Amino acid sequence: MKTEIIAVGTELLLGQIANTNAQWISRILAKYGASVYFHGVVGDNMERAVKTFEVASERSDVIIVTGGLGPTEDDLTRDAVKPLLKQNLVIHEETLTKIEAVYQNNNRQMTANNRKQALVFEHAKVLHNAEGMAPGQIVKYEQTLFVFLPGVPSEMKSLMENQVLPYLIEAFTLESEIVSEMLRFIGIGESALEHKLEDMIAQQVNPTIAPLASEGEVGLRLTSSGAEAKSKIAALKSDILQRAGEFYYGSDDLTIEEKVRDLLKENKLTLGSAESLTGGKFIERLISLPGASEVCEGGLVAYTPYAKENVIGVPSDLITQHGTISEECAKVMAIQSQKRLNVDAAISFTGVAGPDRSEGQDPGVVYIALQVGRRAPFVKRYHFEGGRDKVRLRAVKKGYELVFHYLKNL
Amino acid sequence: MKTEIIAVGTELLLGQIANTNAQWISRILAKYGASVYFHGVVGDNMERAVKTFEVASERSDVIIVTGGLGPTEDDLTRDAVKPLLKQNLVIHEETLTKIEAVYQNNNRQMTANNRKQALVFEHAKVLHNAEGMAPGQIVKYEQTLFVFLPGVPSEMKSLMENQVLPYLIEAFTLESEIVSEMLRFIGIGESALEHKLEDMIAQQVNPTIAPLASEGEVGLRLTSSGAEAKSKIAALKSDILQRAGEFYYGSDDLTIEEKVRDLLKENKLTLGSAESLTGGKFIERLISLPGASEVCEGGLVAYTPYAKENVIGVPSDLITQHGTISEECAKVMAIQSQKRLNVDAAISFTGVAGPDRSEGQDPGVVYIALQVGRRAPFVKRYHFEGGRDKVRLRAVKKGYELVFHYLKNL
Repeated sequence: MKTEIIAVGTELLLGQIANTNAQWISRILAKYGASVYFHGVVGDNMERAVKTFEVASERSDVIIVTGGLGPTEDDLTRDAVKPLLKQNLVIHEETLTKIEAVYQNNNRQMTANNRKQALVFEHAKVLHNAEGMAPGQIVKYEQTLFVFLPGVPSEMKSLMENQVLPYLIEAFTLESEIVSEMLRFIGIGESALEHKLEDMIAQQVNPTIAPLASEGEVGLRLTSSGAEAKSKIAALKSDILQRAGEFYYGSDDLTIEEKVRDLLKENKLTLGSAESLTGGKFIERLISLPGASEVCEGGLVAYTPYAKENVIGVPSDLITQHGTISEECAKVMAIQSQKRLNVDAAISFTGVAGPDRSEGQDPGVVYIALQVGRRAPFVKRYHFEGGRDKVRLRAVKKGYELVFHYLKNL
Repeated sequence: MKTEIIAVGTELLLGQIANTNAQWISRILAKYGASVYFHGVVGDNMERAVKTFEVASERSDVIIVTGGLGPTEDDLTRDAVKPLLKQNLVIHEETLTKIEAVYQNNNRQMTANNRKQALVFEHAKVLHNAEGMAPGQIVKYEQTLFVFLPGVPSEMKSLMENQVLPYLIEAFTLESEIVSEMLRFIGIGESALEHKLEDMIAQQVNPTIAPLASEGEVGLRLTSSGAEAKSKIAALKSDILQRAGEFYYGSDDLTIEEKVRDLLKENKLTLGSAESLTGGKFIERLISLPGASEVCEGGLVAYTPYAKENVIGVPSDLITQHGTISEECAKVMAIQSQKRLNVDAAISFTGVAGPDRSEGQDPGVVYIALQVGRRAPFVKRYHFEGGRDKVRLRAVKKGYELVFHYLKNL
């Protein structure tokens, strides 16, 4: 079932709203194994709308159109598709009665335009719109099925879930629901992960493997359909984890912060931070999670050298000798905050967020130290790319990566 | 300038993300009177991508393509457009050097795929990507201009604002037809603000007035077109500020955090924080801004009673007597952090983020105290609605509101 989703509305082309309807419809169709091959947006312009529907009808089995069914002059979906469908528009009496009743109940004057919303194609399957005025419609044209839905998200969703989806499942025998799992990895780059799984990715059919890189992490979406979808996913996952399991932290909606919280809880450990360029962002993310009080005491945010001395307790001669952006300073920040916060583990961040250089070092240079129990602290220098925000975010993410790998190997 | 925006990426067709890139680009182009006639999304499929680019090149002057420039097999934008452009792809040495350096700096292995990101069309204008690896490109093909941008929003936006937009303004002599200013207010609700301006809003034609409420703030967008657009906006703004100026903090992209930083700088004051439920979010937002080191020493994040005693110095008998979620505790947190951080002003947050009650108090109850110089601290109890994240965000925003109003009246 080759599907295309077309939104009609100038407000989308002006950027006043995002096309979240297409996203929502795509997500629900993906679950049933329907292939969405194109999204399109066209404005309230007759010529371009007509052309868009023509192109779509030549390449897709199902065309889902959202928007352009309202009462105003701009609402041109019906008229634009009419020459293609070669069907007349007729008044849908049930809808007209409903519209008239709404206007009567509100003591408002009905205009000629309001009747327009009751127009449907003469051979359409009319879909009752419980949430609004204009009904949905399903119309066949040669080998193509056109589905017309209102652009208002609540109306579109209700029609889609209750009427269109059951219709499509029946018409296209979309029996097999798709099973999908997103495997989440940290500490390995996208290309390195792909390299490890090269042969699997080359051979993929069912399940498919789709890599997705995001800020400091990589995801692999495994998707399978058919009778044994679940066990196929489980088998492939197990093969993948044999090769790259050390970088895997969880699946689907789990975040690395939640994983770290869970590991801390399992190991009955508390964590604190000493932060300079990250400004408290590391500890804030942990505290943002329910259950944080069991695993987190707090953090020391010391942005200036003065604060590093007085709030954290970094000796002033260490700062004079090595500067605050140094391995030595990061180490002492971790050791001191572990003591002052009375936590099992403490992590520290010091570096240059930019845009300017600092203490003779480039923007992006960051030292992170991790101190656990009485072991000597781990410390490492990084050089992150990007602007001020990105450097800070990457540092925080790297911090979670370090804590995760440490806790995982306990 | 007939423009079309095409996003390449199967993740969009699966509904994993919405095409917010198209929205953002459309909005910025609309300001300059450029007409966006189509949005399209196509997946990581060579045949369909090639066809999509062909159709676009026949109807549009400018085609802006986002996504598909990364290092993986799926990233096919360059190869899909190559037959159409009839140009070779060549290695961009500057980019390759940059990619190699990133891998070296992080001691990671570079794979053959990573080189792919350095490929550009031989006659392209290459756009340096400060936020990521793959550069942007502008390529002319007969009468059509192709603009290739990464799909990562931060990279796309930076390239679009700094390089593509200036290029298009020059090439197509775009003039900004519409003048618009967003006035930003804090400390007044949307309906109260609308009430103050009732007659103005009723009479609006040119400029128009559009209110927009967001988390703890209200915006008023004034929009005008025509020859005297700028002076009309200025006159209306002045009228509005006569009635509601005390709540106005700035216009357009200015944030309340930036305004507070600027006021601190003007008044040569430093600020610190003592944070419990907000977890460091207040101070983190200040430190996220360039120039923060002049106005901010740091903060003390104390999530547990233990940390409040030991890190901030709240007396244990005060906690026993009043609890940590109390006016008394908030006050001492502010006073103590002012001392320990050696700052002119300190703000404290203590309360219940939820989902559970704490110390017999409901989720949403938050005490905020502000201590400036040697004056007695200001302290107030709030009850914010919403879930854990919302309560924490509202508390932080309220904190900025309090500091803003204090500094404004100095």
